[in-house]
Amino acid sequence: MKVEENDKLILITNDDGLYAGGLRTLIRIMEDFGKLVVISTTDSRSAMSQALTVKQPIRVKLLEEDEHKRIFACSGTPADGVKLAVNQLLERKPDLIASGINHGSNASASILYSGTMAAALEGCLYNITSVGFSLNSYSSSADFSGCDKYIRQICSMLLSEPLPPGICLNVNFPALPAEEIRGMVVARQASGNWQEEFERRKDPAGKTYYWLTGSFINHEPEASDTDDWAIQNGFVSVVPVTTDMTAYRYMETLKSRL
Amino acid sequence: MKVEENDKLILITNDDGLYAGGLRTLIRIMEDFGKLVVISTTDSRSAMSQALTVKQPIRVKLLEEDEHKRIFACSGTPADGVKLAVNQLLERKPDLIASGINHGSNASASILYSGTMAAALEGCLYNITSVGFSLNSYSSSADFSGCDKYIRQICSMLLSEPLPPGICLNVNFPALPAEEIRGMVVARQASGNWQEEFERRKDPAGKTYYWLTGSFINHEPEASDTDDWAIQNGFVSVVPVTTDMTAYRYMETLKSRL
Repeated sequence: MKVEENDKLILITNDDGLYAGGLRTLIRIMEDFGKLVVISTTDSRSAMSQALTVKQPIRVKLLEEDEHKRIFACSGTPADGVKLAVNQLLERKPDLIASGINHGSNASASILYSGTMAAALEGCLYNITSVGFSLNSYSSSADFSGCDKYIRQICSMLLSEPLPPGICLNVNFPALPAEEIRGMVVARQASGNWQEEFERRKDPAGKTYYWLTGSFINHEPEASDTDDWAIQNGFVSVVPVTTDMTAYRYMETLKSRL
Repeated sequence: MKVEENDKLILITNDDGLYAGGLRTLIRIMEDFGKLVVISTTDSRSAMSQALTVKQPIRVKLLEEDEHKRIFACSGTPADGVKLAVNQLLERKPDLIASGINHGSNASASILYSGTMAAALEGCLYNITSVGFSLNSYSSSADFSGCDKYIRQICSMLLSEPLPPGICLNVNFPALPAEEIRGMVVARQASGNWQEEFERRKDPAGKTYYWLTGSFINHEPEASDTDDWAIQNGFVSVVPVTTDMTAYRYMETLKSRL
């Protein structure tokens, strides 16, 4: 692949691994927008959040190259992959980072655990316009066809109107066929959390171990301006996300108490 | 340890492991405030962000118990540890979660990678008043004595005035002796990022691998209302942090473009 000066250069990544249907869908769509560099792990690295690999070395391998794309396998986390691509693998700063399509919603508090969204956050820390896409289905054979039109619309917009520093997009799709999707809305992150249940088991030696399980609870299911409401009601949700986690609304109260 | 109805119950955790000086300092201080449950890993799990262990079982072991505290070793991430403690190990919801004292600053964008702050964020997703403490020194023999007075002041305040849902505190200390610390300020998260350099090496078989290294850059070093400015200028910084990452200021622009 040769990247010409007027080519758009797009970095693609995800956290479900190189063989995930969501990544394959995203690559197919994004090939129409520019030259692609894809970096991902060979297996899934879900729920890695913005973890970095600091105690192990990172390996990377060029797996595949044609005229339109270069595909790398990376041993690290999604955030490591973006750092390595930006600092070592790309010929220049990419015009866009697109992450996903994740198998599973990253709406509401799930953004905090998401490797897909960590890759987008990592991109915007480098001041690169970045977006994460997720489908509200954990199935490995999920149907991503409803995402196509919206991904094209969002990426066209982002390539002509870059995002301001420190902001990226969290896009979540309902798990519906294209004709049943009711449209796209700009939403805010719903207040919610995961209600955990741990499965407590005994290993063959009689020692206890736990499996983390759980289900997501939206704390404000009636609020119709949130990302979780949107995907539960057939809309594509687009949340602008900031890397600045300061709770500005609480600063004055805190000053009065300290 | 027996937790009586009028005891304060405090969950302590960190991401530098059970033998870290910062954790030992925090335990010593917090024993004056209530009954403690400590959960941490045996080794350091730095830069784990809010990663969860979903593909491996989690092990936990009661290591030590006396009248004032119970200490557990957990095989998971800092966020796993909080989830496990809240859901399986504690007799009731704790009055406070205190995480740290981290060896290394978690000011500015470092919060996004921090296991220490992930534990605090995890706590506030459960609507438990939570705080993360970090010292601006990576040294394993760092001097934490300057933190004592401020940790007592902050935890007294938090035990009498719980935080609102979805907000926790990110407290960073300058690496200075007590008498040189100039005071405590409420600050906002500085805009900054890590400038990465990867060390590229060859293994004995001639194959390339990378070590992630890098240094933090404050993008607004002159702004005196940020956490990074505070610790660089001898102050303790306290940032109220929200789990809501929505960039509200960009919503209208985004609506006009989509």
